[in-house]
Amino acid sequence: MQQDLDLFLSIVNDLLEDEKRNPVVKPIEASRLFETIDFEPGELPALEEDFKETLREIVLTTPRTATDMFYNQLFGGRNSKAILGDLLAVVLNNSMYTYKVAGPMIGVEKSILDKIAGMIGYPGSQGGTVATGGSMTNYMAMLMARDKYAPEARYEGIPQGMVAYTSELSHYSIPKNSAFIGLGRNNLRMVKADAAGKMDVLDLEKRIKEDIAAGKKPFFVNATAGTTVLGAFDPIPEIAAICKKYDIWLHVDGAYCGSVIFSRKYKHLLKGVEHTDSFSVNAHKMLGTPLTCSIIIAKDKKHLYDSFSNEASYLYQTHHDEFNFGKTSFQCGRRNDALKFWTLWKAVGTVGLEKLVDRQFELAEFCRDYIKKHPDYTLYSFDDSISICFNYKDIPARDICTALYEEGEIMVGYGSHKGTEFIRLVTINPSNPDETLLRFFKKLEDFSGVLEG
Amino acid sequence: MQQDLDLFLSIVNDLLEDEKRNPVVKPIEASRLFETIDFEPGELPALEEDFKETLREIVLTTPRTATDMFYNQLFGGRNSKAILGDLLAVVLNNSMYTYKVAGPMIGVEKSILDKIAGMIGYPGSQGGTVATGGSMTNYMAMLMARDKYAPEARYEGIPQGMVAYTSELSHYSIPKNSAFIGLGRNNLRMVKADAAGKMDVLDLEKRIKEDIAAGKKPFFVNATAGTTVLGAFDPIPEIAAICKKYDIWLHVDGAYCGSVIFSRKYKHLLKGVEHTDSFSVNAHKMLGTPLTCSIIIAKDKKHLYDSFSNEASYLYQTHHDEFNFGKTSFQCGRRNDALKFWTLWKAVGTVGLEKLVDRQFELAEFCRDYIKKHPDYTLYSFDDSISICFNYKDIPARDICTALYEEGEIMVGYGSHKGTEFIRLVTINPSNPDETLLRFFKKLEDFSGVLEG
Repeated sequence: MQQDLDLFLSIVNDLLEDEKRNPVVKPIEASRLFETIDFEPGELPALEEDFKETLREIVLTTPRTATDMFYNQLFGGRNSKAILGDLLAVVLNNSMYTYKVAGPMIGVEKSILDKIAGMIGYPGSQGGTVATGGSMTNYMAMLMARDKYAPEARYEGIPQGMVAYTSELSHYSIPKNSAFIGLGRNNLRMVKADAAGKMDVLDLEKRIKEDIAAGKKPFFVNATAGTTVLGAFDPIPEIAAICKKYDIWLHVDGAYCGSVIFSRKYKHLLKGVEHTDSFSVNAHKMLGTPLTCSIIIAKDKKHLYDSFSNEASYLYQTHHDEFNFGKTSFQCGRRNDALKFWTLWKAVGTVGLEKLVDRQFELAEFCRDYIKKHPDYTLYSFDDSISICFNYKDIPARDICTALYEEGEIMVGYGSHKGTEFIRLVTINPSNPDETLLRFFKKLEDFSGVLEG
Repeated sequence: MQQDLDLFLSIVNDLLEDEKRNPVVKPIEASRLFETIDFEPGELPALEEDFKETLREIVLTTPRTATDMFYNQLFGGRNSKAILGDLLAVVLNNSMYTYKVAGPMIGVEKSILDKIAGMIGYPGSQGGTVATGGSMTNYMAMLMARDKYAPEARYEGIPQGMVAYTSELSHYSIPKNSAFIGLGRNNLRMVKADAAGKMDVLDLEKRIKEDIAAGKKPFFVNATAGTTVLGAFDPIPEIAAICKKYDIWLHVDGAYCGSVIFSRKYKHLLKGVEHTDSFSVNAHKMLGTPLTCSIIIAKDKKHLYDSFSNEASYLYQTHHDEFNFGKTSFQCGRRNDALKFWTLWKAVGTVGLEKLVDRQFELAEFCRDYIKKHPDYTLYSFDDSISICFNYKDIPARDICTALYEEGEIMVGYGSHKGTEFIRLVTINPSNPDETLLRFFKKLEDFSGVLEG
């Protein structure tokens, strides 16, 4: 064990040093990957030196998501307090299904779930779980809704005529999940978004009325807190009123930006969340824990049990359900994804999480200001978002993003809205100073010059 | 970062030292957990010393799954080569959906998937994924089968009349998944198991015929390689012949014991696997990687794409599908669960994995021998299994297991078959010498004396 811990530290040390000089690695061409690195495990053990060398090579050529030139995804940066918890989770290797095997780790998870439940105005106490990602938390919400309105679905199969609703700008997991749960993608209505990317509540109600008139059963609305491309927030109070009127489950997909609940300044973006039925948030996005730490809270824990529990006498042998978390999860064996969030939260406090969130919005404002002040830029995104969508001169977004990647300069991606493609800069790494973002723009401008030339 | 890495090492060091003296921690009573440990994150940052102390307390009171007195689950032990890979995955923090963001880690995952595909006689090349657990890999198999035989399910919802089959001794995820995919638990037939815990193929065919006669569409059979309690292997060749005859998808749930493919001596237990449609195995069980490392391979990768792909222009911006693994996974963001298996396999070679597997069977035989030689014991399990099910004298299994846990002596659980409850000892930790198992029996006997007294 000691030898491999030493090797771990030595490689991490090399990585941290190299990251300072090279925040972006020049990618290995995919078609040449397997001739460049000797991946294949052999019949016999690798020679120790070969193994170390290959592993080091892999680590040092892997895309760097923690540096100040990584803006490609809805995560980034490296929070050492969260890393600490996740490293310990690896060594401890508990499965989170029972108190017998997870012990105090149940307390770790429970303390997070209860605290978030309280913050969003849900009655607390074990109405949630830490799942494997935002797609999964959305899945669990849709499934709970299905089983609430069609309890026979679990036994006889899903009945015909159920319909769900989400904004056309919501995450792709919503249509995928519609297929997964047996509903079918055609029974998911893609509600229009307005010019700012928020769900058009008039269109939502119109479609619900049409479906009811056609004899269908609307059962689920997904509202998004931070859409994938624009980072827009659907208007929860208006949607909640409609859901109440027609008796429909309302889920808030806060995978990307649900963490605004930790900020006194920005939690108004989730106003009305207490009137919803379920809420999800990814701590591995705005809060910067390692992947994955996805939380879903159900207002009434009964629905989590109804959809996810299963008796298993070989497994549940001691303690009450309240401490056996396997009864509220999709999985059986489940990795401890709670500890990393706990070490972070406990260490920095709620005010520390607030700072992480606020700083991301501050950086976003800084970037929008820069773009507005420079006439070569066009801005496509809106205030109150940490996604900054823009184009520079007439250069196609995908060309410049791909070139920046291939040359190992910046990792940033593109998106589109209303037919226009643009660069999507995500200011999700709160450790960046303003100057780093200036550097980002400067690099982009220099590079664009080369592209144009 | 350095400070938290140092803290990590210091706590791990304390843990490793303490584990030597105390392989089992005396549990904290669940009802007293929250008064014993100060879990709740505060508004303000924790004082540094308080934080360290609380974290250390949590780690040192967490149940120990790596020691020589842990036999409670289908995992155990601690393989430092696999730990090494997983620790690096935490620090690197890549998401496995695209080559742009995962880079060489796609090569790591692909090399494992392709090699396993080759070993089970499936045509190789990206016909699989690393999913979040055995429940999920079973889910993915059932969903691919649903979508193969009812392609309209993805769009219009699952049609009526589909039926699936599994042994009554299979894992509880099969009925759960039946509910999840919209099929309904009542449309899953629980096929009889024979005296040795293997699926009764006569009963399987009888039920298929009955369903067809009733106008139903049989679409999926789950065969288990290592049932949860007895560790039994369903007879694949006979089941495959039936599935071929009636055109049904055959999945092998090898979560527990699919790793026998790595052993020349025991791979015969999976004879016929090349005639199946999908195969899953958990490297975090017999191979001892940290949780989770669950692999599913589909014989025809088309089905993985059909059920799990989704276009997303904001995400898939470079490279072919073959290097963008997000198109074959349930999740969007996905943790790197491949590296830990790769570091292990690469370091020890296939012969090293074989040794891990063979040693577990050797230990199991040693235990069965011991039990057979001692008339106070009754054996309920069978050869070719690493689950050893037995009772000692007339002491109820649940009483002794719970007492051993509460006193901090041994972590071991119980199961039942044909109405009899028994202790289930799992020899899944290959680092144990024979003497350790002798110590297990001795402890159990001594303790039983106390219980009787």
